[in-house]
Amino acid sequence: MSGVDLDVPTGTPAAVPTPQPGDPRLARLSLNQKTVNRLGVAEATDLCVRHGFGAIGLWREPVAEIGTARAARLVRDAGLRVSSLCRGGFLTAADEAGRTAALDDNRRAIDEAAALGTDTLVLVVGGLPAGSRDLAGARQRVADALAVLVPVAADAGVRLALEPMHPMFCADRGVLSTMEQSLAVAAPYPASQVGVVVDTYHVWWDPAAYQQIARAAGRIASFQVCDWVVPLPADTLLGRGMMGDGTIDFRSFRRAVDAAGYDGDIEVEIFNADVWAADPDAVAATVARRYVTEVLD
Amino acid sequence: MSGVDLDVPTGTPAAVPTPQPGDPRLARLSLNQKTVNRLGVAEATDLCVRHGFGAIGLWREPVAEIGTARAARLVRDAGLRVSSLCRGGFLTAADEAGRTAALDDNRRAIDEAAALGTDTLVLVVGGLPAGSRDLAGARQRVADALAVLVPVAADAGVRLALEPMHPMFCADRGVLSTMEQSLAVAAPYPASQVGVVVDTYHVWWDPAAYQQIARAAGRIASFQVCDWVVPLPADTLLGRGMMGDGTIDFRSFRRAVDAAGYDGDIEVEIFNADVWAADPDAVAATVARRYVTEVLD
Repeated sequence: MSGVDLDVPTGTPAAVPTPQPGDPRLARLSLNQKTVNRLGVAEATDLCVRHGFGAIGLWREPVAEIGTARAARLVRDAGLRVSSLCRGGFLTAADEAGRTAALDDNRRAIDEAAALGTDTLVLVVGGLPAGSRDLAGARQRVADALAVLVPVAADAGVRLALEPMHPMFCADRGVLSTMEQSLAVAAPYPASQVGVVVDTYHVWWDPAAYQQIARAAGRIASFQVCDWVVPLPADTLLGRGMMGDGTIDFRSFRRAVDAAGYDGDIEVEIFNADVWAADPDAVAATVARRYVTEVLD
Repeated sequence: MSGVDLDVPTGTPAAVPTPQPGDPRLARLSLNQKTVNRLGVAEATDLCVRHGFGAIGLWREPVAEIGTARAARLVRDAGLRVSSLCRGGFLTAADEAGRTAALDDNRRAIDEAAALGTDTLVLVVGGLPAGSRDLAGARQRVADALAVLVPVAADAGVRLALEPMHPMFCADRGVLSTMEQSLAVAAPYPASQVGVVVDTYHVWWDPAAYQQIARAAGRIASFQVCDWVVPLPADTLLGRGMMGDGTIDFRSFRRAVDAAGYDGDIEVEIFNADVWAADPDAVAATVARRYVTEVLD
């Protein structure tokens, strides 16, 4: 069970009115496209406009379905910002062919981000290559790849946003496991060129999370929210919950990134089969309301 | 799928002979009773003797089935050490009744450990109370409970062993998530009274793991091994793999605890439905062989 409570249209005694389009509280709210996984760029863009979101977080695959230029125009004409492009990364291959393919793919992702008008390319750095137990080696290869990609991104006006992943994903998805570690990898580069993603789902457990968010001042490239809900589902990739359904204290995290000077968009990114199956308008309305009740003051 | 490869009796071309009872390489090897979950204390003890293990890690529930005195006698008569008793803890209740009940239960666990002749009581400290998002508060309550329990344990000659749990279990099982954090909670007490558990499954992902193991010198109360196997099963509690089936570099961790001066038993603790369903003699033989090939030099 997912813990998703799409409390539209039934509401609850404690429910607040759903914020309407034009509500200034929604100005920084961004819908990451993955939250409405069945929708293409056009449909997701319309949904954001219909519900008053200020921005959208795009994914490369649905963008590729209609072409980068068309996607860029759709979002621009809708008056939305592109808060980020997901995702580059997967930079841990140990063989030369894998390494070259990954760098080429990331160069394309940088170009796509620039064409879409976002300065933020989220990097999920990749897990251990099949059969490998060399975690330190994989982490080093991420740093090595960054040395190649940062100048390319800087030329394109794109900031690479390192996303520390929950340690549950260390083996197969992302060997950067903490904010502290991600900041260390970013440190050799200007903050304008390499930032970090603060995703509540990935960092909420970290005893050093608030301290590291303070240290990240100037480097926070994206702030993403979704909740930790137990028990985890069979596919742990799809365990993310709607804000308010789980164990994360979003308000404290939002205040921490505020205090670190972050004033960019706040992306709601929910990988969850029940959310994906639900009516997108109900999802968007719930996201807007929970954003107001759980994330803002 | 669990990734378990019980390569007895088929073996593989690369298989080494199974170490036999009396093999000095097995002197520090301990079978945590949970690895053969269907067996009672008597059967698990016999199994350890049959396969030449030097010690056994006991759990309170199967001990209670036959009584602490009888369990102690069985293990002593078999010539085995009790490497640890699992487990006390669950100290995060926010209400007075829950807190009192937890302290009482831990006092009983301390008495049981002493009666069983082990100086190590493993503490799984507990997750967030239902409905709570106050992670810092839960962590503080662990520290507060420890202040009550440490003198009780010290009087009984028992060392409390704080087990940092993988962050995947932070919400519902253990709010101590790293070695560093556990060492900070242990710091006010003598190392002889409060130690930490190094369980490869819980700490392998931590960028600071080796550094913190070095810092833990003198405080390492237990070293436990089992592997991280992806994908995780539907019940993430049962995802632990046989050493060699996953992504963990055991030899490096064993060398690190060696270098930190740990010379106690090395416990194999595998929560895994397939391992539990297998023939216990095949499990014990595989554990002994994998211990030699994956953990020792």
